[in-house]
Amino acid sequence: MGNPFRGADVISILDFNRGDLELLFEYADRAQKRLGTKLDVLKGRVVALAFFEPSTRTRFSFEVAAKRLGADVISVSGEEAISVAKGENLADTIRMLDAYGDLIVIRHKHEGAAKLAAEIAEDPVVNGGDGWQHHPTQAMIDLYAVLKLFGTVDGLRYALLGDLKYGRAIVSFLYGLTRFKPGAVYLVSPEPLRPRREVLMKLEELGFRYEFAASLDSVIEEVDVLYVSRVQKERFPDPAEYERLKGSYVVNLKTLSRARPGLKVLHPLPRVDEIALEVDATPHAAYFYQASLGVPVRMALLSLISGAEI
Amino acid sequence: MGNPFRGADVISILDFNRGDLELLFEYADRAQKRLGTKLDVLKGRVVALAFFEPSTRTRFSFEVAAKRLGADVISVSGEEAISVAKGENLADTIRMLDAYGDLIVIRHKHEGAAKLAAEIAEDPVVNGGDGWQHHPTQAMIDLYAVLKLFGTVDGLRYALLGDLKYGRAIVSFLYGLTRFKPGAVYLVSPEPLRPRREVLMKLEELGFRYEFAASLDSVIEEVDVLYVSRVQKERFPDPAEYERLKGSYVVNLKTLSRARPGLKVLHPLPRVDEIALEVDATPHAAYFYQASLGVPVRMALLSLISGAEI
Amino acid sequence: MGNPFRGADVISILDFNRGDLELLFEYADRAQKRLGTKLDVLKGRVVALAFFEPSTRTRFSFEVAAKRLGADVISVSGEEAISVAKGENLADTIRMLDAYGDLIVIRHKHEGAAKLAAEIAEDPVVNGGDGWQHHPTQAMIDLYAVLKLFGTVDGLRYALLGDLKYGRAIVSFLYGLTRFKPGAVYLVSPEPLRPRREVLMKLEELGFRYEFAASLDSVIEEVDVLYVSRVQKERFPDPAEYERLKGSYVVNLKTLSRARPGLKVLHPLPRVDEIALEVDATPHAAYFYQASLGVPVRMALLSLISGAEI
Repeated sequence: MGNPFRGADVISILDFNRGDLELLFEYADRAQKRLGTKLDVLKGRVVALAFFEPSTRTRFSFEVAAKRLGADVISVSGEEAISVAKGENLADTIRMLDAYGDLIVIRHKHEGAAKLAAEIAEDPVVNGGDGWQHHPTQAMIDLYAVLKLFGTVDGLRYALLGDLKYGRAIVSFLYGLTRFKPGAVYLVSPEPLRPRREVLMKLEELGFRYEFAASLDSVIEEVDVLYVSRVQKERFPDPAEYERLKGSYVVNLKTLSRARPGLKVLHPLPRVDEIALEVDATPHAAYFYQASLGVPVRMALLSLISGAEI
Repeated sequence: MGNPFRGADVISILDFNRGDLELLFEYADRAQKRLGTKLDVLKGRVVALAFFEPSTRTRFSFEVAAKRLGADVISVSGEEAISVAKGENLADTIRMLDAYGDLIVIRHKHEGAAKLAAEIAEDPVVNGGDGWQHHPTQAMIDLYAVLKLFGTVDGLRYALLGDLKYGRAIVSFLYGLTRFKPGAVYLVSPEPLRPRREVLMKLEELGFRYEFAASLDSVIEEVDVLYVSRVQKERFPDPAEYERLKGSYVVNLKTLSRARPGLKVLHPLPRVDEIALEVDATPHAAYFYQASLGVPVRMALLSLISGAEI
Repeated sequence: MGNPFRGADVISILDFNRGDLELLFEYADRAQKRLGTKLDVLKGRVVALAFFEPSTRTRFSFEVAAKRLGADVISVSGEEAISVAKGENLADTIRMLDAYGDLIVIRHKHEGAAKLAAEIAEDPVVNGGDGWQHHPTQAMIDLYAVLKLFGTVDGLRYALLGDLKYGRAIVSFLYGLTRFKPGAVYLVSPEPLRPRREVLMKLEELGFRYEFAASLDSVIEEVDVLYVSRVQKERFPDPAEYERLKGSYVVNLKTLSRARPGLKVLHPLPRVDEIALEVDATPHAAYFYQASLGVPVRMALLSLISGAEI
């Protein structure tokens, strides 16, 4: 069987079908078993991390994944990345990374930045999150977390809570679910944070079924997976709107009191206060476990792109 | 004989007894001899450096130590660390590092941050300096420097000069001396920068003898080791108090004119102007030598914690 | 034949003669062929990058070069470097890097910073660009690019365009040309950005022939190599002067319409708008190729300094 990731750019989770993702998850299982050993399958390769928007969690897990596979890593982030972005056009920066590295991971606030990078670079480009829509490796991790927690992604009942307009992780998870057969998908968000028309049209095109739910309370009793996303202040044009909405979608012990015993709460992290700390000690909390899968899933992806066996 | 460092957190120099430290110093001797070769005793391990307070010297020597042992390193510092700290609670950040790395080094301005991290993380946590009190690896380096310079830590006469209230390095060195038998210990600091009650009570509890000295002049003739610490502006609630005191405790050729020929001046660095540049060329200056021991001592510690022979 | 780079500091391109540079270029050829493999010739060595002035391109290519040779790298740059520079004197910082690393690359805005570092450090020091005059490794890359593009550096006709007063890359390229026998060298810059007296005297001393050209138009028809440099805002004492001059020396399709078919445009990058994007698609554009040589040339230099064969 072919390896569809080999040499490929990874811009959107929608670039891949169910079989592709299942292959990835097999590799993630293998990577999981090899943690703690230094592999040399990417020895001699240089992975360039260009984080024009900060994300320590994503950056660190890519960096650890690459190093565990034997690659070297160069990394620009934080203020330095911002200053690079100001100093020259993105295309020239990408050409530099393309010349010095063998694989580029880019994170950028602008929608389409990863796609643009992929068009310019000869190296494979992995989208580490751009714009409001695509964060494919996060979706891979989230789907893999569900698989590990439930043994399947199919047939489960999902509630996606929070910011479906600006939250690229939750939108990508939603896209990812279209590759499987969920039992139900409830989109729970305040009116102004519902998915964009473009997303809904895509779901329709794919014949993907979902329902809007006015509140979490109305669905909490029946769901297996509660995917929580952060209401991000920086994404709101109007700070007052943010203040009004931020508290509405908080998950705490009270929220979960009517949940099924097997309910698992996922969150791409970092959280601010949308999941109360008191939830951490419950068996519902799966977000730290989920985060721990970042390294093996990204090891799987990097090795598949590089055509390397692990 | 057991290895008390194996899998242990290193929060305070007081966590260790004389025998522990002597074992560490043996390992530092071995590490010293292996500089220039790349060891592979930590190959496959990831050391996570989380410097929420800047310190290039400490960070670099941990980084070099880890890499010389064959480990991979991930590192967050500077503005990026500050933004991480703002974006989520410390516990969540520690859980991330715990998931991605195998050993965590943390530096933080808050007293107790390293201990908190150690309670959360399953990985061993090393305190790279927190609050006003604990900087155990610096104390290890400083004691090792004395040992290398004099052949012993015991029986020598020490003056500790400067900020004993806010200066974690000098306080930790003082704590470290309690594990040995110094000939005399003089604490030379302006009244408002004397050690806190908590420190003095700890010394009393340990039956450790020291004396306050009003000025360096009164003791300079008899001491073997002069440990100088910086009067740090950022630690003063009142800038005027800082301005008044900063010049009082400067070491220069004049200060040293009455010193014993064998006197060695130590300083955890960086210095600002508390040691005049003219001192660098004298045989008293041991602070650059001391700093150079940062790598072998930290190599020793990291390998002992990891249960690896060097 | 001896290796003049072994253990040497690299402060100015003028430290080296034609034979030295030809040896370097031979090594660059070999490095070029080994890209994609991880060498171990610098295994166990630590390269310390101290970028007190930002330059992602230079820093990344040094970092990749060092890692491809098997070295470990520690790196301080951006805000963190600035804060280090504020916190202690440069000499103390260099001593720290000298103690922790085996080779130091320094970039600094102050003329002479690299030389000062070399005087303090026992490790070899490589100037990654300092002041307005010296950027020797960039000149090595630029000369090597000419060699690869034309098969020779000699006999070609060069135009050097832009900021010859503040632009260290273009000045270093000019210095580098003195080691060869160019057919002609035209210096094309606005009056206030002509080379400093110190540079002109050096050229005279070397018996190096060049001509001033009032505009690019007057020489564009006959040159083989057009070296473009950026008019850097931060180098102008008077912002108004910058605004007046910045547009005068832009290279675009119109500028190049009268150029020889074989003309190659070089630029140390990053560019802002001194080369129009429309030029990228022409066969004249050699600046991305030139940039790609940064890694092999720096690999060559690092291995020669370390006395390692590649």
